[in-house]
Amino acid sequence: MPMPQMPPAHPFDDDKLREECGVFGVVGVQDAANFVALGLHALQHRGQEAGGIVSHDPAEGFNSVRRFGYVRDNFTSQDVMATVPGPLAIGHVRYSTAGSKGQTAIRDVQPFFGEFAMGGAAIAHNGNITNANALRRELIERGSIFQSSSDSECIIHLMARSMGRSIPDRMEEALRKVEGAFSVVAMTRTKLIGVRDPLGVRPLVLGKIGDGYALSSETCALDIIGAEFIREIKPGEMVVINDEGVQSHFPFRPQPSKFCIFEHVYFSRPDSILGGRSVYETREAIGRELAKENPVDADLVCPVPDSGTPAAIGYSLESGIPYAMGIIRNQYMGRTFIEPTEQIRNMGVRLKLNVNRALIEGKRVILVDDSVVRGTTSRKIKEMILDAGAKEVHFRIASPPTAWPCFYGVDTPDRDKLLAASMSEEQMAEHLAVDSLKFISLDGLYRAVGQFQGRDKACPQYCDACFSGEYPVTPSDMIDRGFEMKPAAE
Amino acid sequence: MPMPQMPPAHPFDDDKLREECGVFGVVGVQDAANFVALGLHALQHRGQEAGGIVSHDPAEGFNSVRRFGYVRDNFTSQDVMATVPGPLAIGHVRYSTAGSKGQTAIRDVQPFFGEFAMGGAAIAHNGNITNANALRRELIERGSIFQSSSDSECIIHLMARSMGRSIPDRMEEALRKVEGAFSVVAMTRTKLIGVRDPLGVRPLVLGKIGDGYALSSETCALDIIGAEFIREIKPGEMVVINDEGVQSHFPFRPQPSKFCIFEHVYFSRPDSILGGRSVYETREAIGRELAKENPVDADLVCPVPDSGTPAAIGYSLESGIPYAMGIIRNQYMGRTFIEPTEQIRNMGVRLKLNVNRALIEGKRVILVDDSVVRGTTSRKIKEMILDAGAKEVHFRIASPPTAWPCFYGVDTPDRDKLLAASMSEEQMAEHLAVDSLKFISLDGLYRAVGQFQGRDKACPQYCDACFSGEYPVTPSDMIDRGFEMKPAAE
Amino acid sequence: MPMPQMPPAHPFDDDKLREECGVFGVVGVQDAANFVALGLHALQHRGQEAGGIVSHDPAEGFNSVRRFGYVRDNFTSQDVMATVPGPLAIGHVRYSTAGSKGQTAIRDVQPFFGEFAMGGAAIAHNGNITNANALRRELIERGSIFQSSSDSECIIHLMARSMGRSIPDRMEEALRKVEGAFSVVAMTRTKLIGVRDPLGVRPLVLGKIGDGYALSSETCALDIIGAEFIREIKPGEMVVINDEGVQSHFPFRPQPSKFCIFEHVYFSRPDSILGGRSVYETREAIGRELAKENPVDADLVCPVPDSGTPAAIGYSLESGIPYAMGIIRNQYMGRTFIEPTEQIRNMGVRLKLNVNRALIEGKRVILVDDSVVRGTTSRKIKEMILDAGAKEVHFRIASPPTAWPCFYGVDTPDRDKLLAASMSEEQMAEHLAVDSLKFISLDGLYRAVGQFQGRDKACPQYCDACFSGEYPVTPSDMIDRGFEMKPAAE
Amino acid sequence: MPMPQMPPAHPFDDDKLREECGVFGVVGVQDAANFVALGLHALQHRGQEAGGIVSHDPAEGFNSVRRFGYVRDNFTSQDVMATVPGPLAIGHVRYSTAGSKGQTAIRDVQPFFGEFAMGGAAIAHNGNITNANALRRELIERGSIFQSSSDSECIIHLMARSMGRSIPDRMEEALRKVEGAFSVVAMTRTKLIGVRDPLGVRPLVLGKIGDGYALSSETCALDIIGAEFIREIKPGEMVVINDEGVQSHFPFRPQPSKFCIFEHVYFSRPDSILGGRSVYETREAIGRELAKENPVDADLVCPVPDSGTPAAIGYSLESGIPYAMGIIRNQYMGRTFIEPTEQIRNMGVRLKLNVNRALIEGKRVILVDDSVVRGTTSRKIKEMILDAGAKEVHFRIASPPTAWPCFYGVDTPDRDKLLAASMSEEQMAEHLAVDSLKFISLDGLYRAVGQFQGRDKACPQYCDACFSGEYPVTPSDMIDRGFEMKPAAE
Repeated sequence: MPMPQMPPAHPFDDDKLREECGVFGVVGVQDAANFVALGLHALQHRGQEAGGIVSHDPAEGFNSVRRFGYVRDNFTSQDVMATVPGPLAIGHVRYSTAGSKGQTAIRDVQPFFGEFAMGGAAIAHNGNITNANALRRELIERGSIFQSSSDSECIIHLMARSMGRSIPDRMEEALRKVEGAFSVVAMTRTKLIGVRDPLGVRPLVLGKIGDGYALSSETCALDIIGAEFIREIKPGEMVVINDEGVQSHFPFRPQPSKFCIFEHVYFSRPDSILGGRSVYETREAIGRELAKENPVDADLVCPVPDSGTPAAIGYSLESGIPYAMGIIRNQYMGRTFIEPTEQIRNMGVRLKLNVNRALIEGKRVILVDDSVVRGTTSRKIKEMILDAGAKEVHFRIASPPTAWPCFYGVDTPDRDKLLAASMSEEQMAEHLAVDSLKFISLDGLYRAVGQFQGRDKACPQYCDACFSGEYPVTPSDMIDRGFEMKPAAE
Repeated sequence: MPMPQMPPAHPFDDDKLREECGVFGVVGVQDAANFVALGLHALQHRGQEAGGIVSHDPAEGFNSVRRFGYVRDNFTSQDVMATVPGPLAIGHVRYSTAGSKGQTAIRDVQPFFGEFAMGGAAIAHNGNITNANALRRELIERGSIFQSSSDSECIIHLMARSMGRSIPDRMEEALRKVEGAFSVVAMTRTKLIGVRDPLGVRPLVLGKIGDGYALSSETCALDIIGAEFIREIKPGEMVVINDEGVQSHFPFRPQPSKFCIFEHVYFSRPDSILGGRSVYETREAIGRELAKENPVDADLVCPVPDSGTPAAIGYSLESGIPYAMGIIRNQYMGRTFIEPTEQIRNMGVRLKLNVNRALIEGKRVILVDDSVVRGTTSRKIKEMILDAGAKEVHFRIASPPTAWPCFYGVDTPDRDKLLAASMSEEQMAEHLAVDSLKFISLDGLYRAVGQFQGRDKACPQYCDACFSGEYPVTPSDMIDRGFEMKPAAE
Repeated sequence: MPMPQMPPAHPFDDDKLREECGVFGVVGVQDAANFVALGLHALQHRGQEAGGIVSHDPAEGFNSVRRFGYVRDNFTSQDVMATVPGPLAIGHVRYSTAGSKGQTAIRDVQPFFGEFAMGGAAIAHNGNITNANALRRELIERGSIFQSSSDSECIIHLMARSMGRSIPDRMEEALRKVEGAFSVVAMTRTKLIGVRDPLGVRPLVLGKIGDGYALSSETCALDIIGAEFIREIKPGEMVVINDEGVQSHFPFRPQPSKFCIFEHVYFSRPDSILGGRSVYETREAIGRELAKENPVDADLVCPVPDSGTPAAIGYSLESGIPYAMGIIRNQYMGRTFIEPTEQIRNMGVRLKLNVNRALIEGKRVILVDDSVVRGTTSRKIKEMILDAGAKEVHFRIASPPTAWPCFYGVDTPDRDKLLAASMSEEQMAEHLAVDSLKFISLDGLYRAVGQFQGRDKACPQYCDACFSGEYPVTPSDMIDRGFEMKPAAE
Repeated sequence: MPMPQMPPAHPFDDDKLREECGVFGVVGVQDAANFVALGLHALQHRGQEAGGIVSHDPAEGFNSVRRFGYVRDNFTSQDVMATVPGPLAIGHVRYSTAGSKGQTAIRDVQPFFGEFAMGGAAIAHNGNITNANALRRELIERGSIFQSSSDSECIIHLMARSMGRSIPDRMEEALRKVEGAFSVVAMTRTKLIGVRDPLGVRPLVLGKIGDGYALSSETCALDIIGAEFIREIKPGEMVVINDEGVQSHFPFRPQPSKFCIFEHVYFSRPDSILGGRSVYETREAIGRELAKENPVDADLVCPVPDSGTPAAIGYSLESGIPYAMGIIRNQYMGRTFIEPTEQIRNMGVRLKLNVNRALIEGKRVILVDDSVVRGTTSRKIKEMILDAGAKEVHFRIASPPTAWPCFYGVDTPDRDKLLAASMSEEQMAEHLAVDSLKFISLDGLYRAVGQFQGRDKACPQYCDACFSGEYPVTPSDMIDRGFEMKPAAE
């Protein structure tokens, strides 16, 4: 089955870090799967390749649907949704790992389901298991048959082999063997279960809907179903929810938390709430901080659409330089067109963006973007802006230089593809041939997310491995494959 | 064939006036159809239901492709594009007339093609013929067989019956019999032809690409193919373009021009150039004018995404009240989901937008929108804003009250569905239950588009029938069907 | 849209003459289109590329569905059939003209519809208009716009231009201008109309169903809807059927009838009734006649499946040589598979047939086939039979040598592709390298169809142009294109 | 994904016993999967719901394709076949178990694949494991996770848990734990493996193709790829084939063989060879035996198409009564059409068959069919024959009364749906209201398949449980579910 062509929602997804998953679950409402479909739709920015829903109904048992493509295209028809009845359901959206060699098969699409002696269970996992290869090898030795190429499948096999008497017990046991980042939403016939790894790298929140409960990667998905946001699940916490309410305990050895700071910068939706503040406000604060650290005299502050927008507004408010939409995004983005023989300069970018030529001409322009990954699109955007007649182009980036890959559930290019892995700020400015290029400092970013003393070097308050190269969990599978960590001395 | 589900690009398309078509043509380049595909992609906001391309190649003759759905989904594969070879091609995108009774058939999709004694011709039409019913009846009497339900098909039958010796001659003759608004792009085996009606209601621009030329509804489609914008085609002008260049003449009786003022307000893309200025700047100017006319004390200026954005920025700049994204649009908009049993308040809107709850709470908010049509979504947005804890909600609308339907190529509800047809500004404010609701004045709008003396009541400089009820061309078909014009005395 | 892959129902369709159309119509029953769908299904052997249905309902007016592919795949869902309501409907199936240059577009699929001043009409045509090119040229000169590449479209344009007061009048006038073969089923808002050309080349029969009537290409389609077969429409007859019954008249100049004799040999279904006898019995009689004319000593009589079966049974009954299925047809025929590198001898044939190896080995085999067109498959079948160990192979053909193309609605290869155009019976036997090859004589065939005196040379009782080269209607378009008739002297 | 509508190849599949699978494998040829696709096409009669191919290539490893629908629709494109490269491949076709409650998921489609510590293996299974439920329960207890609802998946889990050092060792060990009927084709990275259960219930044959080998359910699939038929795999035999040739051994405890006698009657293709004779000849012999046992005076012997044809020919040859096609099958069978309001008698049958009315009228007709299962279609066919004016109708059935369900890989209705389970021959004749109804005797059938002494009551030479109720392997899962065996005393 050819993969349907799915235009990216962000115009430069191919030059962005990408969240790999979103999870959602509901218990205690009629037709839970309909809520899950809505929740997954609100989490679509966390994964667009495929989605799946598993439900349980006392009469019909477990049922599932797994599909490639958008939630809105797959989980909206009466025909499909009628196949996943019942008051308890979980779902998952996953990102396209386009560019990786193998193609995703439908059997890689979560939630995963296993039938155990005491009944079935389904799990949906956001994050990445850093010792999955080793676990997989061991499980195969003992007779497990893997059906997918997903690291997450280890969890269900570990559960199958556990001697635990209940499914939550087996899940605890399984997750204690697992290293890395995980926010898991799972279900049995009667229970909705949520767990975050001890570091709390990936988000997971709890909401109340009528007499039932919801678990979600982000609060924006609670909003869409009209659920009330109660609280974040804590790092290392496991909640088991049934008709009688929410039971919480902490099955793992406690550790200092390490929430992913990039969720604030780019992954989470601006209308989600993280740490009591809207992500939008945090990004505006990042923009203000960026303006304080890196002022420049100019005529206009323009965002690189769409993710640079809140930081650009913040930069404008702090600097007093007018905010303007100098680059207009095509609402109907296309990934591919046949390039006419008469070659079109930067055609790939033109499919997605157009410069507001009449506005830009003769102006000194500050462009605010959220990050620089490969730098390929930054270069093209600069060219378009200059072609349109801008007098100066100044890049201001709302995150520190991205110099290290993420191994905790984010799709990053290999280290040697990251521009900041081999260049200083000045070298990048020269490479991109812009009038200036400045990143927010790591301390500045920590201040903007509310750590007013900046980053605690001894024990950073967040996971910032993509900027600092300091990995809170050793990525053992990757080290087996030859990845070299930053020397400890550094 | 069931119509594919096409989520609208603007979240409230069902409560907006909608442009019904975009046209594009190229001559004198290799593989002209590839350029046309790109051009139509850039014009997709003018019509999303279907698109078509006709090309001519000296060896292969005329060929065509017509498809339902987005340009990016239909005109991007090598297989499809190889079927429309040659150095001359035109294309058309059309809007969904969802809500109208009949369904569009593929034979309604333009360009239309006719084989005449002296060879074939294809035409693509943006606008609406106001005497199409009468013409159709007459043509059928004389033996023409209509294949579509489109008003535009009259043109090709009139051409077939003309005694003119050349296709341009026949086209002139045909268009002289036609009343209403038309910007036409047409082609013969060797010529690209562009015509605007004498009033120039719909836009049409000329560009240069290599040794060839392009005609387009808007300049943004010239940008995407790297063409240089030369000039607008003038009202009443006909250009015939071949290898030897552009020939221009004026076959119609001259009249004062009446360009559609709503193109400035909403239809055209903000990065297109109209009257020498970017549409974005005009909309920002509308926002400034709106702030001058209707100031109010508040904490935030928020756009209703996405079309209210430039006016909101203008309002913020003029008023000094900070601009903020209080409403966040879902990038993956869905039209339909199954509503869970536990009913979700304003679910339709939640699929598309979410309020930035943490930002809005306790604030006095000015919402800037481009227009109020039925008022249904304005009401829902207000409810969401209040639910999120806003203290006050003030609507500011970047166009005058829309009280009359358009008959010149725009899909408008019947007059009795237009909120402003039966209510004053005050009544609307009360109906929507907002703290205040103010529209820009008609004079204010004229000033913002550059008519610094305001509207010339004796002979308005634009077609503003949707606001004023003063129709520059009598909509005779509609009068036959019972439409009542505004009394002349009024 | 890529054409769906449609395996042929007869294994050697690519080496057979092929009927190009089937027509069916019903009036005076509820949900007439459902009957038409069944009728077309029974006529599917007359055309497999595409089908269409037009219906009329007093409340809903005219409606139509046109689709590529089989009737059973397109006209069986409630969704589709609900779009063609009403008590009056006609339909059409058409053959793939694969091999012709242009591809069929959906607009070539009949019935054709035209809106006239006195109301709409739809027509479905089986046959071929031999002066279509000339008519088309003339109609275009006068302003008609053709939408299809079909010869049949001329009829509807001639009707549109007629001054006749009623649709049947206009149809008469149109058909009087048309040369060639036509069996037409047509409809207005209230009438079902059937016409056969003066020679009666193509079949058309009348049936009674409840209080209503049906028209069909063959009686087998009356059987499927439980209709009673009343009579054949006569050559040159026009029937107009409405609530008050069947009116018949003869609008054309009378001529001696020339029914297509190949309908008996191959086109019609064996369970249809032609001339009061089942086609199956006629074919059995052909086999008996063939055995009388061309006896040979052998062990088995085997049909080439499936169309050779009745003649083989007749041959066996007459000769006393046992009948056996020496060649087994694959029920799931495929048109294309990727040929493995290790080349498979006669792979194309193996996809469709397999020799009953254990049965054939060491035997003298008579193979009975209905016709030899190009001779390509005869050769391959012979090879397979010999590979399986047959001692002798004798071909007996249930029709005379096919030496001339048909221009009356049958898809025939160009004359130079017909084996019999350039070879005698002996040369063909040598070319195919078989032990013997014999065709039934033209007189023998006439006897088998019931003309016990044989063929009337002065005025043949049937159209047998494909055997004799004597064309009852001059194929003027083809002569314009360079086709050379058999010299009159011959 | 809605299941595509797949018309059955046999007109009364819904009233027939149905083989559930076909298996095929090739080693030692280039692009082995292309041969497998052809082989599966030739075995399509053994399973039409879905098919799958697994291949191995030294460079690309294991690859697979699994699809719903016909082989000719899924495994013919270059795109698809390029995904299964390499010199070793196996495949599987499976029947639709329409009518069973659950729907088949794509993960139920074989071959199944497992990754073991020593490398991967794939298996394709024809037959049925009668202790699958018990095995599955036990495997789940120990931590295996089942991905399908198929009994065959047990084999791969048993292999995964085996301590065997090689894959063939593990397979032996697994199959020794399995009860029931199995013909398995399997593959490792370098070996093609074939196994038949000790009773040899299902067929499996070995062929030679170039320097390589093929395994197939039937010889007809060897013919299509041009392979030479070497021999049948013996009951209880395991062959392991690699570059060095074929190694054979017998890992199971020897037992008297019990080949399925119904393969002769109906399942196998008439051109396949079983026991040195073509199935066609055996069926003709059954017809002769039937005529000897049950003569009757009549005018015509007609087969019920298509499976009754060889027996009808045999009956005609033995009795001297002429053979004729009194019932014509529609080549384009459809499963569903919307029944028009005016109800059509026996519409379901009419979609598939039509009586040759002109031939049948006034005749005494013998109808030869292969079996009577529910008797529903026999009744309808009789009605159609009588409606067409037949004077007498005599049914002759080419198998004994089918009174017991099959548990060895054939889809049979529950026992209470089998007409012969509750009625004697006379009662059935009366129930069907025919002039006479006679079945071949069990001894007669044994004689026709070559056991000239008839059936050995003490130790029957075949599995004939569907006729006799004597099950050679205890169907333990079914007994757990309440199935009652025939009392031993009977």
